[in-house]
Amino acid sequence: MVILVTGGAGFVGSHLVDRLVEDGQNVRVFDNFSSGREDFLLHHGDTIQTIVGDLLDLDAVKTAMKGVEMVYHLAANPDIRLGTQVTDTDLKQGTVATYNVLEAMRLEGTKRIAFASSSVVYGEAEIMPTPEDYGPLFPISLYGASKLASEALITSWVGTFGLQAWIFRFANIVGSRGTHGVIFDFIHKLHRDSNSLEVLGNGLQEKSYMEVIDCASAMIHVVKNTDNEINCYNLGTKDTCSVRRIAEIVLEETGCTNASIDYTGGDRGWAGDVPRAMLDAQRLFALGFTPSHDSEGAVRLTARVLVEEIGRP
Amino acid sequence: MVILVTGGAGFVGSHLVDRLVEDGQNVRVFDNFSSGREDFLLHHGDTIQTIVGDLLDLDAVKTAMKGVEMVYHLAANPDIRLGTQVTDTDLKQGTVATYNVLEAMRLEGTKRIAFASSSVVYGEAEIMPTPEDYGPLFPISLYGASKLASEALITSWVGTFGLQAWIFRFANIVGSRGTHGVIFDFIHKLHRDSNSLEVLGNGLQEKSYMEVIDCASAMIHVVKNTDNEINCYNLGTKDTCSVRRIAEIVLEETGCTNASIDYTGGDRGWAGDVPRAMLDAQRLFALGFTPSHDSEGAVRLTARVLVEEIGRP
Repeated sequence: MVILVTGGAGFVGSHLVDRLVEDGQNVRVFDNFSSGREDFLLHHGDTIQTIVGDLLDLDAVKTAMKGVEMVYHLAANPDIRLGTQVTDTDLKQGTVATYNVLEAMRLEGTKRIAFASSSVVYGEAEIMPTPEDYGPLFPISLYGASKLASEALITSWVGTFGLQAWIFRFANIVGSRGTHGVIFDFIHKLHRDSNSLEVLGNGLQEKSYMEVIDCASAMIHVVKNTDNEINCYNLGTKDTCSVRRIAEIVLEETGCTNASIDYTGGDRGWAGDVPRAMLDAQRLFALGFTPSHDSEGAVRLTARVLVEEIGRP
Repeated sequence: MVILVTGGAGFVGSHLVDRLVEDGQNVRVFDNFSSGREDFLLHHGDTIQTIVGDLLDLDAVKTAMKGVEMVYHLAANPDIRLGTQVTDTDLKQGTVATYNVLEAMRLEGTKRIAFASSSVVYGEAEIMPTPEDYGPLFPISLYGASKLASEALITSWVGTFGLQAWIFRFANIVGSRGTHGVIFDFIHKLHRDSNSLEVLGNGLQEKSYMEVIDCASAMIHVVKNTDNEINCYNLGTKDTCSVRRIAEIVLEETGCTNASIDYTGGDRGWAGDVPRAMLDAQRLFALGFTPSHDSEGAVRLTARVLVEEIGRP
């Protein structure tokens, strides 16, 4: 039976494909290569199938769904900030794309889906660490809205058409093959000017980080060890890391230790940025999964591998 | 300043327009008349403006938004059951329509929105009566998914573009001008056969009901008396009414007291039907609003007026 990974050529997707192939699964990737990259999958040769297609093309999704036993739906616009400028990207590439995945599943008889949701569905939560049953869910970014909308579509398909679903609410996922995010941005900024690093906000933003291979492994671990109709899990670590600390670590790992750190000020990086996000991942840990890296360890590892991938400033 | 009511020719919308006009507001209705009806608004003559248009036409929505100070966004597909057969109706007429309303607001500078959400965002809640901060939110109908997706779009516009929002999670709203729902269906069934009444499910489904004028008045009361960025209120009564009891009341009010009641069986009316929904409306009551009718009173009043509107079987 085939496992379909949407966004399988992307940052998290390609690591998930690695882990699924290690597990001996028959993997099919569906990706439009807008942020996914061919070289993230090249090492698999002919072991996996790769379909270049867009999730907004329902016919293409239906074709890709043939013979699929389970879908890992990871494809999405990866850039949360984009929603402040272009307002329909998350609606289309998040919500409508998820609708097409579910509709193709219904039409082709595929019954199991795992979905990459995000801690941003919690918005500015009043309880931290935030558990999975937290409410109300008032996301403040358009990206967050599309993640919650996608979760809701999935649970409605479970209730109406008998699907089984895994909803994973990701912490900030970092690691090799990163194509966006704060560490990636900092290294690129230092490439442009190695003497000063501009940090959006006051640097006190503080969030949970998880290393990407931990994230991929956690997804597979939870799917193997749970069997409810809806299985909702925060994927994160026990701690957090501040943007201020990330800036210091990036300066250390790039060797730009003399660079000044310049804060633009304000409590958040941009409109829609959640200043503090700490996930309660006890439900994941209780299932016997322990991440290999804590937040700061994941950040340092990521800075190190991204400096290798991008080059030293 | 103009108040725009989307779906203003519909069941709840037309009652809301009545109340806003009573309050001396300058009301503009936007409706595609798919389930709204001209005669629900005729009594206003030229007091209100009526625009016939579709929310899926962003240009039309932008035009309708000019000079608008606040939007009451009530337009949606009113038939929850439809999602079991046609899967993109709620996505388009719920989620995408809400996106267009918000985008038109952003482009035209309109800052305040009240939204008709629903108790179905709670799915099959484990806590009843269910308060506004209940989680997780796992709606089981496609209609419910579109309501939660719309809420999320609204809160993301609040967080990203500085809107102010009122989110109203409706109990089952019943009353005059009803165009759908269980009481409406029962009366129509008795028109076809006054000797027997088929009830979907085992009749033990039990939900909160609220009379439609109470609902419209509650919305206006909350908007007048709250001023947070996001104001989320359950609109309901203190009690519930079972489908079994509704069937009895409809038989009494139609005079079909000798008709048999035939249950199709099962704990829900259809896939995606929530068998039990009881809203905790303490937050509304604490604001000084008391509904004129409890659930059973609202159901009886509705049966009585709908028999007048539809005719006696």
